[in-house]
Amino acid sequence: MMSFEKIETACMDDAAYPWMPFAPYSDVVQVKYFKADPVRGEVIAMLKSPPGVQLPMHHHTGTVIVYTVQGRWRYLEHDWIAGPGSCVFETASTRHTPLAIPGESDDVIAFNVIMGELHYMDDKGNTIAVENWKTSVNRYLAYCKANGIEARDITSFGA
Amino acid sequence: MMSFEKIETACMDDAAYPWMPFAPYSDVVQVKYFKADPVRGEVIAMLKSPPGVQLPMHHHTGTVIVYTVQGRWRYLEHDWIAGPGSCVFETASTRHTPLAIPGESDDVIAFNVIMGELHYMDDKGNTIAVENWKTSVNRYLAYCKANGIEARDITSFGA
Amino acid sequence: MMSFEKIETACMDDAAYPWMPFAPYSDVVQVKYFKADPVRGEVIAMLKSPPGVQLPMHHHTGTVIVYTVQGRWRYLEHDWIAGPGSCVFETASTRHTPLAIPGESDDVIAFNVIMGELHYMDDKGNTIAVENWKTSVNRYLAYCKANGIEARDITSFGA
Amino acid sequence: MMSFEKIETACMDDAAYPWMPFAPYSDVVQVKYFKADPVRGEVIAMLKSPPGVQLPMHHHTGTVIVYTVQGRWRYLEHDWIAGPGSCVFETASTRHTPLAIPGESDDVIAFNVIMGELHYMDDKGNTIAVENWKTSVNRYLAYCKANGIEARDITSFGA
Repeated sequence: MMSFEKIETACMDDAAYPWMPFAPYSDVVQVKYFKADPVRGEVIAMLKSPPGVQLPMHHHTGTVIVYTVQGRWRYLEHDWIAGPGSCVFETASTRHTPLAIPGESDDVIAFNVIMGELHYMDDKGNTIAVENWKTSVNRYLAYCKANGIEARDITSFGA
Repeated sequence: MMSFEKIETACMDDAAYPWMPFAPYSDVVQVKYFKADPVRGEVIAMLKSPPGVQLPMHHHTGTVIVYTVQGRWRYLEHDWIAGPGSCVFETASTRHTPLAIPGESDDVIAFNVIMGELHYMDDKGNTIAVENWKTSVNRYLAYCKANGIEARDITSFGA
Repeated sequence: MMSFEKIETACMDDAAYPWMPFAPYSDVVQVKYFKADPVRGEVIAMLKSPPGVQLPMHHHTGTVIVYTVQGRWRYLEHDWIAGPGSCVFETASTRHTPLAIPGESDDVIAFNVIMGELHYMDDKGNTIAVENWKTSVNRYLAYCKANGIEARDITSFGA
Repeated sequence: MMSFEKIETACMDDAAYPWMPFAPYSDVVQVKYFKADPVRGEVIAMLKSPPGVQLPMHHHTGTVIVYTVQGRWRYLEHDWIAGPGSCVFETASTRHTPLAIPGESDDVIAFNVIMGELHYMDDKGNTIAVENWKTSVNRYLAYCKANGIEARDITSFGA
């Protein structure tokens, strides 16, 4: 059977994909992976963060598209605040420091389409951790195994 | 000044982009354009539909990623129903007929990342209308002009 | 086994992929397929044309990148001529009519990275034929079968 | 004027784009940039290397498509050799060490479509240098300035 025979448009239900800690970056930020493309390197994921949480500065190597479902957040490097229903388009090879706005009542929940890698940096601009399709798959598989969840193949594009 | 000097990560606020009728396909389905990329042909847009509305079958030439914010919808060609928080990944050169599930209380609201074109088809598979970055820009500019709204440049990637 | 376990960087040798007629558009233009991506719709292919051959006008739905290995060609709609070593970048949803420059000594040979579909048009702008990853696979498989060639899986990204 | 009004299909002539040293990685390897996309991070470039030259191992964050025009090269991590007319498809987040095969008569000349970044690594897997659309533009502009060449805007997609 050739590869294309298994490829088709599919729906990934909210309830069928688990939230898991976005460790080691944060214990309270959670991530839900829908897809991690091993050919192109695109990762499709939800992120959820309580108000007031700041993640380390990161550099991303491709585009990121963020649709904010609820809550408000910003990058320290920009003046705008992304609220519910907004769309952020991040161009390739830029870097910024995410902050969930403190004092808000809602957690931030955002839908992300990430092409390529995120490189988390220390204060001197050195890369201290990398996130990509491989680390996404590894985090997903490890979480499923540790919690007795049957892992789906989030690297396939089929039914 | 070179092109890259005007490019940067930006936030498009929900309130800054108008809903408009997705004419001529429907008077009650509405679309909100965030971005129409004249280089790659990617269109980023919200769609909103009352329950029970069916759009014509369409063929899309590239991928489509759909995050459903609220409401429930399906394609007549598939068994699954996409509900709130789900993600649909549509592979290139497939075709289907969208239906907002009848009898639901909520309108469908969905965030779409569309690479390439949609070709609406008649019953015989003939293309009767095409949607792409150009038609998106034209619909946006015409709506802004007709309603006295100052049009933004949805084809740029800057502040 | 999950999909990602079969994915890896691979080399496609010139001699391992056959040239075949780009029928029904032309009997003398030939195409060689390296890859047809059933997820994203990207087709990677060589085209070869004798001098003086003109193909029908086509509309393409995504980007096309053309590196010309030898020969000279142009689009009737543009003033430039693409010669050996040039790179043409075609933006999404544009259309043009290719002509291999008459009277040249070399055939045109070009390497193409095509994202999405080509729609061949008649004089009135009606689509008369579509080329995409599916038609590419079908032409490749039919040619292999008719000529006793063992078909490779040009839709996979592995060894 | 809106951005889309300046976008169109264009041809980049071989002679209009200079070869320049791929410093600091090598004095004898040369690069010719056709395009560096500040939105998506795609770089389109030629590479030229004498036989026998080895470049450092690098990790790339997205896909790379390589069409070899002349010469023969390999990655130390793979068994295949890429010769004239071959196409290499490199999947996202893989790493390898390029070697132009020693003892060949022809320089390697290859056409490259690179999505995202290359991270050059030391023996311990630490990143020692990054290549992306920004470093490509900087190298191009610096070379043009130092050699009295009028720089083109390789970050635009127009005539």
